[in-house]
Amino acid sequence: MNKTVREIAEIVGGKIIGDENVVITGISGIKEAKPGDLTFIANKKYKNLLYTTKASAIIVGYDISDYVNGITLIQVENPSLAFAKIMSLVGPEPITFPPGIHPTAIIGKNVSIGKDVSIQPFAVIEDYAKIGDRTVIGAGVYIGHYTKIGCDCLIYPHVVIRERIKIGDRVIIHPGTVIGGDGFGFATVKGVHHKIPQIGTVEIGNDVEIGSNVTIDRARFDKTYIGNGVKIDNLVQIAHNVYIGDNSIIVAQVGISGSTVIGKNVIIAGQAGIIGHINIGDNAIIGGKAGVTKNVPPNTHVTGFPAREKWEDMRYQAYIRKVPELIERIKKLEERIKELEKNGKKTSEDH
Amino acid sequence: MNKTVREIAEIVGGKIIGDENVVITGISGIKEAKPGDLTFIANKKYKNLLYTTKASAIIVGYDISDYVNGITLIQVENPSLAFAKIMSLVGPEPITFPPGIHPTAIIGKNVSIGKDVSIQPFAVIEDYAKIGDRTVIGAGVYIGHYTKIGCDCLIYPHVVIRERIKIGDRVIIHPGTVIGGDGFGFATVKGVHHKIPQIGTVEIGNDVEIGSNVTIDRARFDKTYIGNGVKIDNLVQIAHNVYIGDNSIIVAQVGISGSTVIGKNVIIAGQAGIIGHINIGDNAIIGGKAGVTKNVPPNTHVTGFPAREKWEDMRYQAYIRKVPELIERIKKLEERIKELEKNGKKTSEDH
Amino acid sequence: MNKTVREIAEIVGGKIIGDENVVITGISGIKEAKPGDLTFIANKKYKNLLYTTKASAIIVGYDISDYVNGITLIQVENPSLAFAKIMSLVGPEPITFPPGIHPTAIIGKNVSIGKDVSIQPFAVIEDYAKIGDRTVIGAGVYIGHYTKIGCDCLIYPHVVIRERIKIGDRVIIHPGTVIGGDGFGFATVKGVHHKIPQIGTVEIGNDVEIGSNVTIDRARFDKTYIGNGVKIDNLVQIAHNVYIGDNSIIVAQVGISGSTVIGKNVIIAGQAGIIGHINIGDNAIIGGKAGVTKNVPPNTHVTGFPAREKWEDMRYQAYIRKVPELIERIKKLEERIKELEKNGKKTSEDH
Repeated sequence: MNKTVREIAEIVGGKIIGDENVVITGISGIKEAKPGDLTFIANKKYKNLLYTTKASAIIVGYDISDYVNGITLIQVENPSLAFAKIMSLVGPEPITFPPGIHPTAIIGKNVSIGKDVSIQPFAVIEDYAKIGDRTVIGAGVYIGHYTKIGCDCLIYPHVVIRERIKIGDRVIIHPGTVIGGDGFGFATVKGVHHKIPQIGTVEIGNDVEIGSNVTIDRARFDKTYIGNGVKIDNLVQIAHNVYIGDNSIIVAQVGISGSTVIGKNVIIAGQAGIIGHINIGDNAIIGGKAGVTKNVPPNTHVTGFPAREKWEDMRYQAYIRKVPELIERIKKLEERIKELEKNGKKTSEDH
Repeated sequence: MNKTVREIAEIVGGKIIGDENVVITGISGIKEAKPGDLTFIANKKYKNLLYTTKASAIIVGYDISDYVNGITLIQVENPSLAFAKIMSLVGPEPITFPPGIHPTAIIGKNVSIGKDVSIQPFAVIEDYAKIGDRTVIGAGVYIGHYTKIGCDCLIYPHVVIRERIKIGDRVIIHPGTVIGGDGFGFATVKGVHHKIPQIGTVEIGNDVEIGSNVTIDRARFDKTYIGNGVKIDNLVQIAHNVYIGDNSIIVAQVGISGSTVIGKNVIIAGQAGIIGHINIGDNAIIGGKAGVTKNVPPNTHVTGFPAREKWEDMRYQAYIRKVPELIERIKKLEERIKELEKNGKKTSEDH
Repeated sequence: MNKTVREIAEIVGGKIIGDENVVITGISGIKEAKPGDLTFIANKKYKNLLYTTKASAIIVGYDISDYVNGITLIQVENPSLAFAKIMSLVGPEPITFPPGIHPTAIIGKNVSIGKDVSIQPFAVIEDYAKIGDRTVIGAGVYIGHYTKIGCDCLIYPHVVIRERIKIGDRVIIHPGTVIGGDGFGFATVKGVHHKIPQIGTVEIGNDVEIGSNVTIDRARFDKTYIGNGVKIDNLVQIAHNVYIGDNSIIVAQVGISGSTVIGKNVIIAGQAGIIGHINIGDNAIIGGKAGVTKNVPPNTHVTGFPAREKWEDMRYQAYIRKVPELIERIKKLEERIKELEKNGKKTSEDH
């Protein structure tokens, strides 16, 4: 890269504080930045890094305006987004997969393939599947019978999507993820587990991103549902008949048990687990490693195991830290009472 | 579907309470059911849903006989199982893979392939492997050298089964699962970790089902063993030399460390972790997210981390909830003693 | 196997205590050993197994010299390592993949392939990738554009390594693992999550081993880094921009959040989770299932959630176990004070 701060401010629609002629030659995180780099501060609480960074310019929000150490600021509405825009200009040319069906790919009967679709080597697309315009099907991807994938999707290598699944537009699925494996359901008769057929499906909305080696099971009946704009990190488990509302975020290694309903704009942090058949309200936040065992109301932040509201969980942690002090106080009380009892006896004897 | 309750009762061998001529046109869960639907109640504790469902008929156990809102009941021994039977009649036609070896599959030397086996595109079967009658090897599956797979197995796409593994009959393995990766073992000399060869294998019994993206490691020597009828959910980790007894159930994201022995009919709930070299007795239940650090006797239900018997763990939770009350009680005691001490002094002075 | 203890002692450079002419016919774990077997004791704390094993000879450290039940000892510096050496002699012949490019493999433009490389069926190697001498690329492996893999690596079937990744020499990657998936990063504007490009890469040192179905994400910018000699178990999640120092060990199902820096020789036990943007010092130990929420100094052993130093965490556990006793003690204090208050009143009334 070789751009002035002025040119960058124009691209992101930002306001400059400082020298607009500074030349930017690279981008990086604020801690790793060297002279010539552009970086950003997404959140005011990291403002103090402004005083130690070696960057030449920083994209910040309108709530930061400290002109420090001669570092030029570019103020914007959303620093992360603005920086992302510059990153895509600066980064290495993205890898693209030109349209066309590789001769090794196996396409079943009555498969419908849209315009400008790219189907990479060793992909298998079973009968009656449908692939929307401009979608990329990566190397070795398996698409089951009757499955429908929307337009402008990017399905990375070795993803497995079983039969009768429905996926929206602009969906990204990272390698190794499995969509539509059988839900885990058995009827146990005299200690022997009989498989309960999982005849439902999975439906995934638009603008969803799903990480690597995720598993999303098909429903027992009806469907497992992932709403529009949901983002799912790596190694997440989503059981049969789970419903996830629009724009929720599920961080790595989370597990959601069967038939649980997650609202809109929910955030579930890493390694949390949620039992089956409960409701998590809109805008709820589930802390990392939390174990959620009952309904969570909307707009509620829960943490711990069993998960409670965050302030309550913190109070419990504080109580436990007080126990050693309590032991000391009880010991002293016991001594003082013993003393009193001795004196009482003396007083009685005095009489 | 278009069947009368009488016809359905005949299929599942059930007893009708109500109108046997009601026509059933679909099936669904009890909460989602609409008029015309058949549903079921697997457990008496959900009996109250009977009063709110819109289903036209419900499969129930013999312990439910409330004829409510004109909803016909079909009583059976095991409602889940009976309902599953109807589901398989009603569901979409299951996807099947006709016998035959796809021309793109790569079959090594001296491979033994049974009758009516289906081998799908891009499968790789290495030298001396053996595939039993009617087994389906999905697209892109890799079967290592000398590995033996039984009859009537269903190995979904992209499963990897390494060399010298033995798998029984009627085993289902979902996509992306890896069987027989090297166990995790190193000898550390002066901070450098030297690989310990993992020369053992994995043996899997009959009627086992294994979820998606599971990892089952091969033994250091001898074998990692999965008993008959064991059911394993998605993203489970089973380390080298683990032994799992017949008909145990391992729910999603569980991790079992090396050389641990799990009894028969054990249930291990989601995200639980079990350390190595311990024994979990027959019929034990390990709660979700539990961290098991020592032997669990048979017929014992443990929860929490470190895992204790469930009633004990609940009592500890209750104790912690009492701490704020204890703080209050101690405060009051301190005040009362102060008062007593003051009075004692006065009494003494009175003398 | 059919070797005398003398022959074995020569191979491992050990000192014999007992009969050097004993003939060894097999190897196994100390508990499963039968007459004729060689086994080992890696740690003095398992010394008592010496008295119950049926093995004919045992490889031990120099700190064990008990000649018991006529079992011959072979003393060595590192018993695990010595035993591993014998195991590789004794085990079944390892499966090897002879050099050569399978005709079904797809090799892109300007790919550089070293001497004696083995490329197995259905592998896909994209343009400008580079594969070092003697490396094995397993069946169905995907290697992205510009990715460089060193010499003597073993990449098992169905591994996906995306574009622009750099991998050192003698690296082993087990099946189903994904290297270089996009980091999980979004800029949220009015509830809608916009993807932040992940233009960085992953760099992996020499002598690294990575388990099955692991996910290692590419950096937002710069790189995610795995140091020399690091060993990673199955189903581990390593987020974008994580740095792992040399010779650290990451056990199964661990999750490490973005930008966290792990020192050298760190051990992270199974199912632990570490939040983002913190530092774990050299030689630290993170206990199983621990949830690490802040920096861990070097040489520190932390456990629990939130993770604290191990002794402190154990003390807290002990405090909680004391709460029921405290309740009893407070009850008694209350009774005694009541009694004192009654007497006090009587005393006052007496006056």
